Amino acid sequence: MNKHLLLENVRQALMRTEETIIFDLIERARFRLNDKVYARGAFGPAVGDDSIVGYLLRETECLHARLRRYTSPDEHPFYAGLPVPILPTLRFDENPLRPNTVNLNADIRELYEREIVPLICLPGDDQQYGSSAVADVTCLQSLSHRVHYGKFVAESKYRASPAQYQALIDARDADGLLSRVTDRAVESAVLHRVGAKARVYGRPPAGDDSPPPIDPAQVVCIFERWVIPLSKKVQVEYLLQRTP
Amino acid sequence: MNKHLLLENVRQALMRTEETIIFDLIERARFRLNDKVYARGAFGPAVGDDSIVGYLLRETECLHARLRRYTSPDEHPFYAGLPVPILPTLRFDENPLRPNTVNLNADIRELYEREIVPLICLPGDDQQYGSSAVADVTCLQSLSHRVHYGKFVAESKYRASPAQYQALIDARDADGLLSRVTDRAVESAVLHRVGAKARVYGRPPAGDDSPPPIDPAQVVCIFERWVIPLSKKVQVEYLLQRTP
Repeated sequence: MNKHLLLENVRQALMRTEETIIFDLIERARFRLNDKVYARGAFGPAVGDDSIVGYLLRETECLHARLRRYTSPDEHPFYAGLPVPILPTLRFDENPLRPNTVNLNADIRELYEREIVPLICLPGDDQQYGSSAVADVTCLQSLSHRVHYGKFVAESKYRASPAQYQALIDARDADGLLSRVTDRAVESAVLHRVGAKARVYGRPPAGDDSPPPIDPAQVVCIFERWVIPLSKKVQVEYLLQRTP
Repeated sequence: MNKHLLLENVRQALMRTEETIIFDLIERARFRLNDKVYARGAFGPAVGDDSIVGYLLRETECLHARLRRYTSPDEHPFYAGLPVPILPTLRFDENPLRPNTVNLNADIRELYEREIVPLICLPGDDQQYGSSAVADVTCLQSLSHRVHYGKFVAESKYRASPAQYQALIDARDADGLLSRVTDRAVESAVLHRVGAKARVYGRPPAGDDSPPPIDPAQVVCIFERWVIPLSKKVQVEYLLQRTP
């Protein structure tokens, strides 16, 4: 039983993803921007046409796919054509989601590389490409997990008001759904909470007068500009695909 | 330039490893003990004679080796026979260490599986083998990094008192070296600090009344019983191998 899939646990599971994302962003922010790790084809035939980050992400996904990561309804790969699991298949009887194909990982990767990394990392190159890329893969995975958790949020909202949601779905009213899933008070509480967490988790230890590894305002910005809007996009796309 | 390799940055680099270890332990503690992931040969021919964790650790090391992780003097693999890097070799001109072969990863893995996981995880099986094993690999890597950072600590101590250390080294006096590298006041400060960090990082967010993901006393215990003694073992073994 995967309790984080149960709708009554959605709120707690969502809050947990905030910690994970903040921890992961802090680890990435220890390294410089290192923009070479995002350049496609920059490292020759062994890496291929992809970037270092892409190479590591795809290989990591191959490995995790063998451990059946992407059979879980809350996990979404960035790459297609991954190997089949070597672990016996799990049944997810508790999975509340309807079948769907929503996957916004291409958007997440693009925004992450173009906006988030330059925001949290100091400019320049410290040559720590491997360490940076490992941290990038972890960040991409935790951001993807959070954003796609919007499916569970959407299912929960639908079940609380099925008639209203079904009318909007039947009318193919994406704007109406976006406005319906939007709750400014909850968003404001999320932003307040992630700011507070970032201040706590990013506090240098007593006796260490170095600057905090991450500016809490940047964490708030990441949630406000990208995580929350993408999560709502997942919610709308999931609802538009939802079979009654 | 890898600034964390410079001896003047040893203290700050060490403190940073504490955060990483605590974050990683918290992520592992979200799952049950799941002792099947440590059982060798339990998953058939695809995994082979190793356990799920061993399989994931070895495959992850193969991938990271290709990104030259183990060419850095502060990184130590758990497995031998890893592939050669696909990234161009870095020079580590700032590396202050003497050549050495100290690697305590076998001890670390054994203690981690036998002592640390049962300490931080609730007993039982939640079937989240893949997620548990991914968290295990991250914990093993961060514990290994911290413990082997003892080499930098030892080099720093040697350079501060070369005559005293060289006399103990020449006499092959392991007990004398252990006693010389031991600083109870510093150890006590480390334990105090990691306890404080664990209380902060493991605090459930406001509005979440679930129990903290990890007991700060357990984090202190992990550093007191295993991390600090293994780090001192690395220091002594490094010094005994140290060429003048």
